[in-house]
Amino acid sequence: MKNHPERFKKQVALVEQAMDLYLPAEDCYPENIHKAMRYSVFAGGKRIRPALLLLAAELFTESTSQAVPAACAVEFIHTYSLIHDDLPAMDDDAYRRGQPTCHKVYGEAIAILAGDALLTLAFEILSSRNPAAGPDPFSPAYALHVAPETRLRVIYEIARSSGVNGMIGGQVVDMESEGKNPGQEVIAYINQKKTGALIEASLRAGVLLGGGREEDLSRLGRFGSLLGEAFQLVDDLLDVQGDRDKMGKAGGMDAQREKATYVAAQGLQKTMDKRDELYRQAMLLLAPYGDAARALQEITGFVFYRDY
Amino acid sequence: MKNHPERFKKQVALVEQAMDLYLPAEDCYPENIHKAMRYSVFAGGKRIRPALLLLAAELFTESTSQAVPAACAVEFIHTYSLIHDDLPAMDDDAYRRGQPTCHKVYGEAIAILAGDALLTLAFEILSSRNPAAGPDPFSPAYALHVAPETRLRVIYEIARSSGVNGMIGGQVVDMESEGKNPGQEVIAYINQKKTGALIEASLRAGVLLGGGREEDLSRLGRFGSLLGEAFQLVDDLLDVQGDRDKMGKAGGMDAQREKATYVAAQGLQKTMDKRDELYRQAMLLLAPYGDAARALQEITGFVFYRDY
Repeated sequence: MKNHPERFKKQVALVEQAMDLYLPAEDCYPENIHKAMRYSVFAGGKRIRPALLLLAAELFTESTSQAVPAACAVEFIHTYSLIHDDLPAMDDDAYRRGQPTCHKVYGEAIAILAGDALLTLAFEILSSRNPAAGPDPFSPAYALHVAPETRLRVIYEIARSSGVNGMIGGQVVDMESEGKNPGQEVIAYINQKKTGALIEASLRAGVLLGGGREEDLSRLGRFGSLLGEAFQLVDDLLDVQGDRDKMGKAGGMDAQREKATYVAAQGLQKTMDKRDELYRQAMLLLAPYGDAARALQEITGFVFYRDY
Repeated sequence: MKNHPERFKKQVALVEQAMDLYLPAEDCYPENIHKAMRYSVFAGGKRIRPALLLLAAELFTESTSQAVPAACAVEFIHTYSLIHDDLPAMDDDAYRRGQPTCHKVYGEAIAILAGDALLTLAFEILSSRNPAAGPDPFSPAYALHVAPETRLRVIYEIARSSGVNGMIGGQVVDMESEGKNPGQEVIAYINQKKTGALIEASLRAGVLLGGGREEDLSRLGRFGSLLGEAFQLVDDLLDVQGDRDKMGKAGGMDAQREKATYVAAQGLQKTMDKRDELYRQAMLLLAPYGDAARALQEITGFVFYRDY
């Protein structure tokens, strides 16, 4: 988590504590799948989505605890998508973040089911009156202060962005475009859907749970969509020029697989120009919030100009 | 759908019409996954879960249209679980209901993602204000007449029963018990979780959406749990003595795989005795509803004494 600004770090710690609470213990029967779920959730993700969700909520409310269950839900969904993407039938990746992927440790069947279980757990938490049994500093606030209509809308935003019109659709087109040299439109579709949709939904869920207005919803949703597109674009840049030790995985994989990326289609320089342009647009969308959006500005800088 | 009583048939027709409305069209981009989703949903399921949900709602209200989205959601979740169970890494089944399984037609990657997409679509529909765009006879009623608190509770019931504490947990133990000759407790766990949990949730969702009381919720939930346990038990009986033409699959597979079933542990006669005992208990739970529960009684008879 090095290089991340302070507020971001605080949100990450909060989310990790809550995820630990919401996930069944490793020794719950049947043990293997609970171990696999925890293994992948705690394999060192950057927690960008939940942090963005909480930072967006923070623009409109002092108490962000009511947004914590939704923050965990989007991270669980992100984790499930990585587990399934890594499977032999999909990207067939043996390592992620420097560690063996879920199916390498627990086998394919458990990895498929652990992904399914994390996706389902996300919706269980989002709809629960009391997401975690036992001493839980988060859920009572969530249950008490969020209107049921708002909770339904948050569930809808997250489900819609994760489904076949969002993340899953992006993954399908990504897979089907390998080796086919698709046009820029298709690459934009992949980046917006595969990565952008859930990041956009994270921002929108944060605005809803913080109590922002409709105009904030569309403005920060648009910000999330740009950030998501940039996130994938920077991932593709890093695959060519990133710090392989920090990333914990081999570089040059996209070219080897003939993945459909901006870098492959447009070259390094044009991709970096596009990144800079997206950055400018993203910062403009944050301008109306002034200093209150400082943490969001910093995370934006990190996403666009990170080296891992 | 032969042999099914009339009310059941009517509900099945309603659900199939609504599912057709909720599923993206086959020619939606990206086409392959939409085709795969529709292929598996319309591969000839018995529609037991959605029919039970609607029949439970019907005990308490004349208008069951507000329960239709939830009925479709449980059938989508059931379908996703079959797609994933059939995968090579899981049960490795080439045929289901006499047709090639999803991964045999569309490949493993698309089959995994089609399952993921159906699971996600279930929660999108459950949380949507207007589950289907365009002319939709169902959703306005659903949006108008169901309190948001009730909708949240329905989402929770369905998510909880589909997750690692329900259906997925059952599938894990089922897989891990193959060839291990586990005790009756483990077999009961498998039957209750893998099949019983979602059927129980379907009944409970129906009661909630129909406006039943808490005592109906626990009574019909218990009825669903028994029915689910019986459903799996009868499946295991059919694997030994069923009509293979009607089932559209080969028999004797459980013995070949050394599956953990009552039949393997206790023999045919004791399994049939247990079925009869479960049937008696299930019918007792329906008794308080008298003639209004006629359709539920008939479906119970079908589930316990079907030959396919």
